[in-house]
Amino acid sequence: MSFESLWADQSAIGRHPETGGYTRGGWTPTEREATHWFLNQCAARGLPVESDSIGNLIAWWDPEDGRGAPSTRSDASSGSSATPGIVTGSHLDSVIDGGAFDGPLGVVSALAAVDRLRAEGFTPSVPIGIGAFVEEEGSRFGMPCLGSRIATGVLSAEKALALKDRAGIGLGEALEKAGIDPERVGPSPLLQKMGTFVELHVEQGRGLTAPVGVASSIWPHGRFRFTFTGEANHAGTTLMEDRHDPMLTYAMTALAANKQARLAGARATFGRLSVEPNGTNAVPSQVTAWLDARAATDDVLQLLLAAITKQATERAERDGTTLEVTPESVSPIVDFPAGLRNRLVNVLDGAPVLPTGAGHDAGVFSAAGIPTAMLFVRNPTGISHSPAEYAEMDDCLAGVDALTAVLQDLAQ
Amino acid sequence: MSFESLWADQSAIGRHPETGGYTRGGWTPTEREATHWFLNQCAARGLPVESDSIGNLIAWWDPEDGRGAPSTRSDASSGSSATPGIVTGSHLDSVIDGGAFDGPLGVVSALAAVDRLRAEGFTPSVPIGIGAFVEEEGSRFGMPCLGSRIATGVLSAEKALALKDRAGIGLGEALEKAGIDPERVGPSPLLQKMGTFVELHVEQGRGLTAPVGVASSIWPHGRFRFTFTGEANHAGTTLMEDRHDPMLTYAMTALAANKQARLAGARATFGRLSVEPNGTNAVPSQVTAWLDARAATDDVLQLLLAAITKQATERAERDGTTLEVTPESVSPIVDFPAGLRNRLVNVLDGAPVLPTGAGHDAGVFSAAGIPTAMLFVRNPTGISHSPAEYAEMDDCLAGVDALTAVLQDLAQ
Repeated sequence: MSFESLWADQSAIGRHPETGGYTRGGWTPTEREATHWFLNQCAARGLPVESDSIGNLIAWWDPEDGRGAPSTRSDASSGSSATPGIVTGSHLDSVIDGGAFDGPLGVVSALAAVDRLRAEGFTPSVPIGIGAFVEEEGSRFGMPCLGSRIATGVLSAEKALALKDRAGIGLGEALEKAGIDPERVGPSPLLQKMGTFVELHVEQGRGLTAPVGVASSIWPHGRFRFTFTGEANHAGTTLMEDRHDPMLTYAMTALAANKQARLAGARATFGRLSVEPNGTNAVPSQVTAWLDARAATDDVLQLLLAAITKQATERAERDGTTLEVTPESVSPIVDFPAGLRNRLVNVLDGAPVLPTGAGHDAGVFSAAGIPTAMLFVRNPTGISHSPAEYAEMDDCLAGVDALTAVLQDLAQ
Repeated sequence: MSFESLWADQSAIGRHPETGGYTRGGWTPTEREATHWFLNQCAARGLPVESDSIGNLIAWWDPEDGRGAPSTRSDASSGSSATPGIVTGSHLDSVIDGGAFDGPLGVVSALAAVDRLRAEGFTPSVPIGIGAFVEEEGSRFGMPCLGSRIATGVLSAEKALALKDRAGIGLGEALEKAGIDPERVGPSPLLQKMGTFVELHVEQGRGLTAPVGVASSIWPHGRFRFTFTGEANHAGTTLMEDRHDPMLTYAMTALAANKQARLAGARATFGRLSVEPNGTNAVPSQVTAWLDARAATDDVLQLLLAAITKQATERAERDGTTLEVTPESVSPIVDFPAGLRNRLVNVLDGAPVLPTGAGHDAGVFSAAGIPTAMLFVRNPTGISHSPAEYAEMDDCLAGVDALTAVLQDLAQ
């Protein structure tokens, strides 16, 4: 099946008829539908699929009869003759009302690249795996790269199972509904078979002017919960000067975050908010706002957070409110290994190298010590996490060409 | 039963064990429980209760055997010998996590005042009604004074039945669940029997320094929906200068509203917000915010709205976002009739007269032409629409004394 057909087939699943966007939180019906599509595609190709305790999937192409599942990296490093596999892939979940490309492009391109290699009669020296990792966006449980964090052990089962979605459903309950036993949640043995990981992904800014590029690093990224507490009161009768309105403290903080990010050449976003009691005629008692902050280095990120917190705290004093800042997740910079990166650049005849402000499972796997690289496909508008996210078909095909060449080189 | 016992009995219903607040949206289980308490109190006193098409209730005390239900105001004005009644009361619903006094104080004081008059052997010249009007706060369906607006015909059944609560439940469905036929919704014949209305209410600012006061007017009050539309995008990869972030436009608008209200000696509050898609790692596509604005005169209110809208529009141009302002409800000033007000002041030996920034069913009834007055009970902190809302028991008892004296005077 051509990439175009695979793409058309997959991207029809769960597209919102009005917005054109996708809402595929982890283990929700729409995400499960996309996952079943993936399983069916693997079955149609005769590729056996392994699943781990949280639902991450790897489909294995091992053309050597009788070789069975790939061996583990520890086997390899201990001098065993067997070699762990090369895994490519991405994720099928999305943000709320997100675009078609963020995630699925990497999975569909992986299927198309394996199809190409098989059609060309290529025999890989090691098994090639096609991965689909769960809840990468964290749009349901608030924790980005949830699947890869659990798989690598960066996130404990205990902390993961304490997560709840917006409807108050715990991760354990969500897993059970998807037929996954929450008692088993923990580090994934699948990763032991992952000798190398290559993730193809749509670029999410306007940093790439060629059709395909190679990632240098992932910016450090923090999610911080800002809890502004004031005093609920009547919106009609309470004098403005008698109020302790946390909405005002929040509003100034949102503007400060924007200004400080511009000054630092960084990113700061307040995109999620919860207001108590959220009544039109009540001065709020509490505003909870989530800051997403990213910068080129860990130091700049810390300075950015400090600058925003300082302005927020000063305004809180003026408003008679209080502020608590809680880090929900902080990921340090990920520098992808230079050797592997340069190998990809050479295979791709000097493709451009660029960092990204977006988090990826590739960053989690790299931080866990798995040799990892990323390919980016050009995003002409830079729009992502939106139904308007877009990539040209020609660029997507160039991405499949590049991934095919990279897999062929790594598995030759 | 003493006022203290009645108060303790009623205020135990549905108090949140942690916040100490009350969440009694119209036709919800907690509000229904309070309503049943009221019905039981009326039944225990042998007072027949009439209900209208939306669930407003009036319990009638008519000591004259065989006189039956009171006649209508039109009967009276057409020269009939029968006289319409004097109604007192308030509401039993609350804002989200509101206080104990806002509403119930007027209903409980009405029961206590009637008890007092009956115990003293007073015979009213006209029937005295005790009213409990539904969804005064508008905390469930977003429309304040919903019950009185439907009863007076200011709000059509068609518009009312188009309202939905936050869970998407329509008013019709909510009524059906409460055993009320939505087909019948419309103006209330009960109001024809309301010759005069007196609402006792806790004061909601710090404007009253005596235990009891009399209302002069209700400030004009508008609820305006501000819809800020931008472009959803990725929080990590989108350059700050490439964004069209409606959260920034909103934040500046919230600060502008506060500043403009201070300058105008008015009130402006953004207490309710809805963000799309409301994801931590997504620049929002849309922020909807509700402005509650009140001022001493209609002109000042209009100028206040214009000033806020101007600053918001200018900021929207800078942010590359758009703004739409939709009035959801705008109530002009209510000046309570001077004759009735002065009569109350005289009965109460020169009680202070003051305006209020809070809306009340009394304002809706007054605007509909029913002679209406209000009594306020002192609020020492000025806090309202909050679990911390409070009135001293001595002041509440002074309120019952005042209401008893007023009813005795009006029905002598």
